[in-house]
Amino acid sequence: MILGKVVGTVVSSSMNTDIQGARFLLVDKSNQRGEKKGDYLVALDLVGVGNDELVMVSEGSPARETPTTINKPVDALIVGVIDMIDEKGNIVYKK
Amino acid sequence: MILGKVVGTVVSSSMNTDIQGARFLLVDKSNQRGEKKGDYLVALDLVGVGNDELVMVSEGSPARETPTTINKPVDALIVGVIDMIDEKGNIVYKK
Amino acid sequence: MILGKVVGTVVSSSMNTDIQGARFLLVDKSNQRGEKKGDYLVALDLVGVGNDELVMVSEGSPARETPTTINKPVDALIVGVIDMIDEKGNIVYKK
Amino acid sequence: MILGKVVGTVVSSSMNTDIQGARFLLVDKSNQRGEKKGDYLVALDLVGVGNDELVMVSEGSPARETPTTINKPVDALIVGVIDMIDEKGNIVYKK
Amino acid sequence: MILGKVVGTVVSSSMNTDIQGARFLLVDKSNQRGEKKGDYLVALDLVGVGNDELVMVSEGSPARETPTTINKPVDALIVGVIDMIDEKGNIVYKK
Repeated sequence: MILGKVVGTVVSSSMNTDIQGARFLLVDKSNQRGEKKGDYLVALDLVGVGNDELVMVSEGSPARETPTTINKPVDALIVGVIDMIDEKGNIVYKK
Repeated sequence: MILGKVVGTVVSSSMNTDIQGARFLLVDKSNQRGEKKGDYLVALDLVGVGNDELVMVSEGSPARETPTTINKPVDALIVGVIDMIDEKGNIVYKK
Repeated sequence: MILGKVVGTVVSSSMNTDIQGARFLLVDKSNQRGEKKGDYLVALDLVGVGNDELVMVSEGSPARETPTTINKPVDALIVGVIDMIDEKGNIVYKK
Repeated sequence: MILGKVVGTVVSSSMNTDIQGARFLLVDKSNQRGEKKGDYLVALDLVGVGNDELVMVSEGSPARETPTTINKPVDALIVGVIDMIDEKGNIVYKK
Repeated sequence: MILGKVVGTVVSSSMNTDIQGARFLLVDKSNQRGEKKGDYLVALDLVGVGNDELVMVSEGSPARETPTTINKPVDALIVGVIDMIDEKGNIVYKK
């Protein structure tokens, strides 16, 4: 999974993704300290992640592996909100 | 999903993709403001997206997950036309 | 799909890909004008594409989605020969 | 598979990945000598890998191919701890 | 498929890949002339490829498509040893 910060929302006339309650969020890829890289992707959010939260995004075929996204053409899914990251014993990110 | 601008069409003697009504479009990858990167790919369009529209493209195996593309060797599918993108509360793209 | 020019053939003692009549071709990734990038991959050809033709290549899992490649460990398949590409109304490539 | 060093742990309110006993580890991609590249990803660990160990990570759809991860939206899985790597007859990494 | 030279072996306490007779090889990605790029990956070898041989590697989900690797978390498989590559009518690699 890659790390990224939620920085916005994407409003789309989605043609092949009739997923109820789903939102597409703008995610800026981030490093392990939550610092943004300026490299964006659009990921599906099923749970209501807030702006500026650090998340894990699962890409490709595994993004379909939820009851909601199964058999949908979705290739990026937010699979968790990051609470804390430690690196070599130091806490480098905390929500 | 990645963002991209539709910049043209690709006419192809497709050998393994007998998909009725499908068009292959030339897409230039774009950032969250709809600014093109000059990095091109070919994506399948099932709905008739117009030139210069900003779209979301789903790549890889998920591109097959529509009734039309199932079991087709297609690895890039336009899954939505972007109406609006906001970033940190500012509208950075509007159709 | 990505664009590429067929520049040669690859002769291989293929161990896990007993696909009758299949050839492995050397493909140089190209831009929308058919200009080569010097970035090579090997793709399966099921139809007999000629040297110097511009083709579309489907990568990853979708490359298996033909009656011939199903359940084969092939991750790149030529899915079409390009006849023409237009970009913003101008023909930028013609066979 | 790619090589990487385990450098930390990621604590996450995982929303779609209810995998018992699983931990998400912070992995820094490494070269064949175990030297870190400063390019991070988050990978699932099912066995309890220790900090600073060199591991192999399987990415994408194959990461689901264990009894535990099947049908989970996980796109990176630690599939082995590296004991030794030899390159051209020289041992370039040893645990 | 990508091209690569086999440059070594990787000894691993593989946790989720109980594949009998399989070896993990260190592969250095190569160009069409067999020249190494210094960009390494680990690929599964089912047939006993020798050191310094040029091989084709299939990545991602297709790597599982052999009787041996089916349902294994393996994302890179050696699918053939290269005997010869010609580019524009010239033999640029020969075993």
